[in-house]
Amino acid sequence: MAKGLFVTLEGGEGAGKSTLARTLKTALEAEGRSVVLTREPGGTPGAEQIRDLLVRGAADRWSPMTEALLFYAARVDHVEKVIRPAVANGDIVISDRFADSTMAYQGAAGGLSLDRLQELHAIVLGEFKPDLTVLIDIEPETGLSRTAGRDGSEARFESKALAFHERLRAAFRALAEAEPVRFVCLDGDQPPAVLAEQALQAIRERLGHG
Amino acid sequence: MAKGLFVTLEGGEGAGKSTLARTLKTALEAEGRSVVLTREPGGTPGAEQIRDLLVRGAADRWSPMTEALLFYAARVDHVEKVIRPAVANGDIVISDRFADSTMAYQGAAGGLSLDRLQELHAIVLGEFKPDLTVLIDIEPETGLSRTAGRDGSEARFESKALAFHERLRAAFRALAEAEPVRFVCLDGDQPPAVLAEQALQAIRERLGHG
Repeated sequence: MAKGLFVTLEGGEGAGKSTLARTLKTALEAEGRSVVLTREPGGTPGAEQIRDLLVRGAADRWSPMTEALLFYAARVDHVEKVIRPAVANGDIVISDRFADSTMAYQGAAGGLSLDRLQELHAIVLGEFKPDLTVLIDIEPETGLSRTAGRDGSEARFESKALAFHERLRAAFRALAEAEPVRFVCLDGDQPPAVLAEQALQAIRERLGHG
Repeated sequence: MAKGLFVTLEGGEGAGKSTLARTLKTALEAEGRSVVLTREPGGTPGAEQIRDLLVRGAADRWSPMTEALLFYAARVDHVEKVIRPAVANGDIVISDRFADSTMAYQGAAGGLSLDRLQELHAIVLGEFKPDLTVLIDIEPETGLSRTAGRDGSEARFESKALAFHERLRAAFRALAEAEPVRFVCLDGDQPPAVLAEQALQAIRERLGHG
């Protein structure tokens, strides 16, 4: 049986994660691999219901700790019902966001300490981590301009939002520097085909045939 | 301003917690105290929505860890928005169930270790605990017969359910033995008025005028 692999894609808004996920799936399937694309928060019926609680309603309806617990409740369901079984089956699982997004968003945004979030991860999921995390690093202005182009809104360009996205970018980069073996950090200004080739190379290395 | 107090009522099904809560409220209000009755899971609009996820659907839809995280997500909301503000305001808050129910139910039922659940509590709520926990201890057969009388169902008397309720009772008693200062353990076979008088005495002691 083929070796399973759990790959996560991380980065700020408009970094190009979902485009990259689709390109990777096509390329890996052309090589005869079975690929499962998934996303967080969500990925299972139960986790999608928890996602609804997270994305609906007023922005401040939950405290950062309540949010982190809801994200982890959804994540346990996702790991138990989708990710672990697929990897055990020899599939390559590619998730658009995973635990590093909680560290970056609830840490950088909510002011929860990284130590506290990492302790939560350890209690809930133990040593379980992605085999490879592809961080697409991009200037917040560039990423937000892509997102704004998609939904036609300029509201996100406020200076406050921009400062938040700068903190988010710094948080993701710090996570990548702390775990250089798990992370590959790619320059999101490159053309999508170049990004995909670099990500594919990292995946092939983790599969043992780089 | 009066001294606030956070009191929780714990015990198995049919132990008499909600009757006791109402009696305590009436008695304490007659002494001029402001009393907030609340319950878990729930107690806030957000926590009630999380409660809906917990109580609806198939019994095995969530793993014990997902359940524990959803309970704690609801609990943080409840503590931040209701319990802490009311206690700070000098109220006596009486909650029908709190963290000890997660320890007993997800521990005894779900097989999660008490250590893991207590670490989760510490990360999420730090040192925050009830000032007083009244455990109503009762034979599972007695408690279940009261519940069965309420809803007319005999299905809960299966031996499997009974074994679970025996584990639950043992878990609650072990929690009380481990924290004899916080807990008062009452014999649930006594008449409601006697139970209420014993609980009132414990509350008065915590308020410093026993």
